[in-house]
Amino acid sequence: MKSDEQMGFPKNKMIGQNSIAFGQPVVILTSASVVGKKEGQGPLAPLFDKVGTDDMFGAQTWEEAESFLQAQAASLCLEKAGLTSQEIRYIFAGDLLGQCIASSFALAEFKRPLFGVYGACSTSALSMSLGALTISGGAADKVLCVTSSHFASAEKEFRFPLEYGNQRPLSATWTVTGSGAFLLGENNTESKRALISGITPGKIVDYGIKDAMNMGACMAPAAADVIFHHLKDFKRKPSYYDKIVTGDLGFVGKEILLQLLLEKGIDIEKQHTDCGIEIYDPLLQDTHSGGSGCGCAASVLSAYLLKKLETKEWKRILFVPTGALLSKVSFNEGNSVPGIAHAMVLESP
Amino acid sequence: MKSDEQMGFPKNKMIGQNSIAFGQPVVILTSASVVGKKEGQGPLAPLFDKVGTDDMFGAQTWEEAESFLQAQAASLCLEKAGLTSQEIRYIFAGDLLGQCIASSFALAEFKRPLFGVYGACSTSALSMSLGALTISGGAADKVLCVTSSHFASAEKEFRFPLEYGNQRPLSATWTVTGSGAFLLGENNTESKRALISGITPGKIVDYGIKDAMNMGACMAPAAADVIFHHLKDFKRKPSYYDKIVTGDLGFVGKEILLQLLLEKGIDIEKQHTDCGIEIYDPLLQDTHSGGSGCGCAASVLSAYLLKKLETKEWKRILFVPTGALLSKVSFNEGNSVPGIAHAMVLESP
Repeated sequence: MKSDEQMGFPKNKMIGQNSIAFGQPVVILTSASVVGKKEGQGPLAPLFDKVGTDDMFGAQTWEEAESFLQAQAASLCLEKAGLTSQEIRYIFAGDLLGQCIASSFALAEFKRPLFGVYGACSTSALSMSLGALTISGGAADKVLCVTSSHFASAEKEFRFPLEYGNQRPLSATWTVTGSGAFLLGENNTESKRALISGITPGKIVDYGIKDAMNMGACMAPAAADVIFHHLKDFKRKPSYYDKIVTGDLGFVGKEILLQLLLEKGIDIEKQHTDCGIEIYDPLLQDTHSGGSGCGCAASVLSAYLLKKLETKEWKRILFVPTGALLSKVSFNEGNSVPGIAHAMVLESP
Repeated sequence: MKSDEQMGFPKNKMIGQNSIAFGQPVVILTSASVVGKKEGQGPLAPLFDKVGTDDMFGAQTWEEAESFLQAQAASLCLEKAGLTSQEIRYIFAGDLLGQCIASSFALAEFKRPLFGVYGACSTSALSMSLGALTISGGAADKVLCVTSSHFASAEKEFRFPLEYGNQRPLSATWTVTGSGAFLLGENNTESKRALISGITPGKIVDYGIKDAMNMGACMAPAAADVIFHHLKDFKRKPSYYDKIVTGDLGFVGKEILLQLLLEKGIDIEKQHTDCGIEIYDPLLQDTHSGGSGCGCAASVLSAYLLKKLETKEWKRILFVPTGALLSKVSFNEGNSVPGIAHAMVLESP
């Protein structure tokens, strides 16, 4: 009889056309959220680990401030696990800025191999999906997944200089200043925040929308597509989940998502919420359609969603961060804004 | 006795501090290279699958031209395998442009889930490492890994408008207009170009160099670091490999790499070459230090290195694409240019 080591361990399974069920669930061991001043005035304020008093975080530029956010979230996540960076195997990280500089300049100090990813605001699920794949495939024991966004660096990157004071249409979302970090590990420990049991990576969906001030509409078709394929692949109904949580569709994108799925005979109205809707109070905070950015889904997952799973108030959720695949170059050249979304099954530990 | 399916399959192994040995080698089934006019005048010209006669490739913008390159390489790679895009499980792709728009606009038409990656010019190894991890973990049977770069879109993204006609110092490299696509699969077929038996993902290494016109110097320390760790982790000597092939260090970076490794008692002079050195004739083509860009390592791997492995002229190589983690924002804000490099063990089939 061969030993477990020789025979390997439970095999990951390809499910349906797009999905993966992990042979062993991957564990979210610890997580951390660090956000800016505005996020610290919203309804989730008491839940974040750290709230900045000033969105510069002591840095000289918005980009450095975003790197600082990300480094702080990563450090705090490791600190909660009592680990140094040398005790983790790999880092999976990305952000919204051109060439992902927020991550590059944040993570060099951790001195561990980095898998850089780009999925616009779907990056939290992208990095954790790849981290979970690496662990479930036996290629790592512990990995750190990090992402961030910053209102000011994102406005500069995608739209107008803040000094220009442009007016924001009601369909616009407000980029979250925040970072979320997640330490993933094998399922051999008592202490855990949640389990990742499966994923459905999403494809690019482009309905031809060209309005960069209406990101919810750009991303909703991709969210609908990945939720549809997830439910089909796993043969599940929306009611299997306590919540189906999209990343940053906001109020405008939410309506489109619900409508697109209804057209396919799927009603997720009871289960659905959106991190961009949860993070701000739209009336008191003047955030129009809601929050957005890689840091939106990441910080809300760490602070709010994982708490609900950890305390077993929710048994399982489908976490679906959404990304808009534009750059200022593609936008100014008249291209559409395609969307992408990745879905992860998160269960209470 | 349980079946193979129940017991799982040979487990991937963590090797040393940074590396992974796959339980079963992952196969490069087919690959394709599509390059621009200048690359088609260089020493590797006869080996590329397609050479453009005009670097616009019929598009309206440089960015669209780059997307076209990438879509064409991906299509050709699938065509060689006799597969449609619906027969592959996932795509792993990225490029140099802000928000990876070359990939987003190239790959939507393939209608398969996309894992977007960003590793600057190390992207070919980054995408294939993650693709191989996914296959070796049993989470996919076939994945497509694609990357590209374009001289004109990269100059616009990182340096000056072409119309400005800036003078290039001798340390500068020339961004390759090209794309390479690779179809990875399980080791259960006769027809294959090469085997991927292990990887050593690299970390960010920053020696504080701020000269964006000397990328070789910026990246050489990261290449030295990942080669050092690879040899240490696997307890191998440079002579284990027929070739150790970096991505785009060029002539300037090569000297620094050899020197840095010599200081650690490692001599790779006999084995070392660089895709950026192989792709152009520096005297006839006025390319100074050599070629660079994601498309450099990717197209040279597909056209030249895999041919040497396929014909068994070489038994095994260490393939080490190198990336410079800068953006025009980080550069103009006075930041250094950190490097990263990822190593893959490629063996003749």
